Amino acid sequence: MKIEIFDTTLRDGEQGAGVEFSSDDKLRVIHALDGLGVSYIEAGMMTDDPAKHAFFHTLSKVKLKNAKLAVFGQTCRTGEKASENPALRAIAECDVPAAVLYGKAWEYQVTDVLKTTGGENLRMIYDSISFVKSSGKEVIFDAEHFFDGYADNPVYAMCVVDTAFRAGASRVVLCDTNGGMLPDVIGMVCAAVTKKHKNIGIHCHNDLGMAVSCSVSAVLSGVSQVQGTISGIGERCGNANLDTIIPVLQLKLGFDCIGENIKNLSRTARTVNEAANLAFNENEPFVGGYAFTHKAGAHIDGVSKAPRAFEHITPESVGNRRNIVVSGLSGRAAVIDKMRAYMPDRAFRKDDEGVIRTAAMIRERESAGYAYEDAGASLALLIDEALERRKRYFNLISLKVMVDSQNDGDMGASAVIKISVGGREELTAGEGNGPVNAIDEALRRALLRFYPEIADMRLTDYRVRVLDSNATASSVRVSIESTDGVSVWRTIGVSSDVINASWQAMCDAVEYMLRMREA
Amino acid sequence: MKIEIFDTTLRDGEQGAGVEFSSDDKLRVIHALDGLGVSYIEAGMMTDDPAKHAFFHTLSKVKLKNAKLAVFGQTCRTGEKASENPALRAIAECDVPAAVLYGKAWEYQVTDVLKTTGGENLRMIYDSISFVKSSGKEVIFDAEHFFDGYADNPVYAMCVVDTAFRAGASRVVLCDTNGGMLPDVIGMVCAAVTKKHKNIGIHCHNDLGMAVSCSVSAVLSGVSQVQGTISGIGERCGNANLDTIIPVLQLKLGFDCIGENIKNLSRTARTVNEAANLAFNENEPFVGGYAFTHKAGAHIDGVSKAPRAFEHITPESVGNRRNIVVSGLSGRAAVIDKMRAYMPDRAFRKDDEGVIRTAAMIRERESAGYAYEDAGASLALLIDEALERRKRYFNLISLKVMVDSQNDGDMGASAVIKISVGGREELTAGEGNGPVNAIDEALRRALLRFYPEIADMRLTDYRVRVLDSNATASSVRVSIESTDGVSVWRTIGVSSDVINASWQAMCDAVEYMLRMREA
Repeated sequence: MKIEIFDTTLRDGEQGAGVEFSSDDKLRVIHALDGLGVSYIEAGMMTDDPAKHAFFHTLSKVKLKNAKLAVFGQTCRTGEKASENPALRAIAECDVPAAVLYGKAWEYQVTDVLKTTGGENLRMIYDSISFVKSSGKEVIFDAEHFFDGYADNPVYAMCVVDTAFRAGASRVVLCDTNGGMLPDVIGMVCAAVTKKHKNIGIHCHNDLGMAVSCSVSAVLSGVSQVQGTISGIGERCGNANLDTIIPVLQLKLGFDCIGENIKNLSRTARTVNEAANLAFNENEPFVGGYAFTHKAGAHIDGVSKAPRAFEHITPESVGNRRNIVVSGLSGRAAVIDKMRAYMPDRAFRKDDEGVIRTAAMIRERESAGYAYEDAGASLALLIDEALERRKRYFNLISLKVMVDSQNDGDMGASAVIKISVGGREELTAGEGNGPVNAIDEALRRALLRFYPEIADMRLTDYRVRVLDSNATASSVRVSIESTDGVSVWRTIGVSSDVINASWQAMCDAVEYMLRMREA
Repeated sequence: MKIEIFDTTLRDGEQGAGVEFSSDDKLRVIHALDGLGVSYIEAGMMTDDPAKHAFFHTLSKVKLKNAKLAVFGQTCRTGEKASENPALRAIAECDVPAAVLYGKAWEYQVTDVLKTTGGENLRMIYDSISFVKSSGKEVIFDAEHFFDGYADNPVYAMCVVDTAFRAGASRVVLCDTNGGMLPDVIGMVCAAVTKKHKNIGIHCHNDLGMAVSCSVSAVLSGVSQVQGTISGIGERCGNANLDTIIPVLQLKLGFDCIGENIKNLSRTARTVNEAANLAFNENEPFVGGYAFTHKAGAHIDGVSKAPRAFEHITPESVGNRRNIVVSGLSGRAAVIDKMRAYMPDRAFRKDDEGVIRTAAMIRERESAGYAYEDAGASLALLIDEALERRKRYFNLISLKVMVDSQNDGDMGASAVIKISVGGREELTAGEGNGPVNAIDEALRRALLRFYPEIADMRLTDYRVRVLDSNATASSVRVSIESTDGVSVWRTIGVSSDVINASWQAMCDAVEYMLRMREA
């Protein structure tokens, strides 16, 4: 059975604290979601702001393979004709195939928040839907606060649903707007509604930490559309997480949501989080970097013997992969696993001196604050070091950085660096927006004479984390992502000084690139 | 009805990637959890490592009001007597009132991972429990992989439960070790087990994003103990989140878990995350800073008119509070709300020029990368500026920072700063582990002559976030937390240069303190 996936990341997701999409971000997200094969993409809320009209106008040129674009808006106001509401007129006029209109299904909200009557609310819903529908658009109706409304006055709540369908809505979506409903309640209410109507959708929020469960419960009670967002991005505790709901429905329960495109799930989740400028939650079910990561020694032994004993699905089915974390808690099995991945042609055994030395070095560095879980390139160099085969491509002779406040209040940084490569010295300078940028410039220029391939490399991410709480005087961990345009690698540095930690991570990044080019 | 809460943050939680507790951290967490009123605290896994023995020895001196401490360990091995297993002997000997032993309840795991027979597995369980029990401890048995086991061979899985009780276990806990079970399945299986046995517990993982729902489902099927961790910290996608399960059971379903102590829930969650050195998830249900935060203009209007229309519980019932976020998406209502909180004695209306100017400044700064959601002190100063009443306590005349690599490879930083206060100039220098630390030192020394109260102030947190992806040359947002020993405030700075951004945040921090002392 087919379950429609309706994505509202760009509309309800954007209500999340810290979430903001530029028009370009929105287009990236729309194409990523289309590649994932969702049925609808809600692109944003229409208001009477001309910038919004312009954005929806650009959408008319977007060609999609799988999804229908939708615009979101409110029903008309008390005493107002739908055809006289500027936002509804803009919705009717904009060149997007579907519109989602929302209205209240909770009588208390109608009388105490909207300050109008139940009858007038039904009129507003009917008039708004039929007006937008007459422009040729598909209209979906979001019944706000449906479950609270059903608990207070089920007859009125059902009247709202009936009215929306009578006005021409193609789907009516039951919203748990405040997110306070339990899955069993959602299931029972959905069963009552789907007994009367087809084409019912569900829209849940995660205030009880059960939005996924509520959505699944609704589907098991006959609902045929699930609204949610990538990674559950959204206001308060977030919306229903589609990254989780899709594989639960499709892989665990046998519904069809997005077919074969489920293999794009992990990649899409990352793309959308990046566009939203959010740190990706690596613990996210199915798609997170840790979702199939094993840390405990006993589990690692087990998972290699019998994957199904420790993994409820195969990571590949959602485009993810198994990952063995190297850390203080894990035994030599995990270390060997990493060593094998790095040097597939060599055989390693638990009692090899190199393995013992690598494990000991990892423990020692980790106790100093290094974290290799997400810094594979630095780990590779550490393994080289433990195996006494690490090559030094250059030596630092001296480094000076100056930061100076300037007339315009901004501060310029310059770095002077002297390195030696095979006995030959090179002195260069670099300028930048900050000390780290200046050092990066200077180091790159110094190395270019010896290693022209450095020209291909650039830094793509730079992060600083304070490791304990004495603020600026405490240890920091700097994590750097670099690319040569083909592959991407991460390195780290730890020091009480952010410049020194950055320097370590930069050196590892350069060394790793040179080593890989040689290999 | 009473439901026991069993916290395993320090044991199963510590399996989470990036999670590590020092002994001191563990003691802080134990006291915080005891104040929360949980029934059991699992303090860690016993192995034959002497450091573990020493840690559990220190626990014997810990006095708790509410909770029982528990030590965790594995049953003995194939062909081994429990009394000859070094870890089990250490468990029997250590001075902690409860022990949790784990063993397999899935026949496939027994034959294919442990490589032994079903009968020998039962012998290992029986022997281990009765050996530890004979030392006078309460023994809880964790039946690993119980639900997978029940699906494959329910007779064998039930045999494991029967055997554990017969050996003297006080509770048998059904574990969904791989986290692949749906709530309805958990509920049905728990109902079958609780029909035969009392004192059954549940232990879920979040691989389907439904660990909370599964735990609640188990309680509704007669289970009387719930195992989980604070914030769901744990391996892969985490454990069942107690911060969510407790209020759902207690406030939504009427079970008693921790009584009045539920008011400590939000605070405890923060304490434990801090001890775990994890960034707190502000979107967490019930306890997160955004859990009762309203961003959308329409909702903000609504929530002040009728809280129950937009909040499913009162934030205060879990020790949290309502929060109105100021951001580009929110209207003037939210801005006024913040202005009123800052200046309760003044009346503000939507069309006040000051309100319009404040809202415009916030929009402008936010589009440059400032984020005031979590920087109340910088926001207060911005409001002062918009109302043309911001006082400048000092002016920067010049600032120079030097960083120099030294013999030991570490880099020292020194800063020279010249400021003026009311026409009088002051030139000072500061040294530090990094440029920001050096500037902080120098600024503080320079100001001390004019404002001796500066001596009370110190930085307690320092964070850097890169705002877009051109790495070191892109904009960064620096966020600083400061304290004067009584209150705590947060400020921010944004610049293409990390030093300049830090400087802005530091200036705001100092200015805010001086302003509050004056007020």
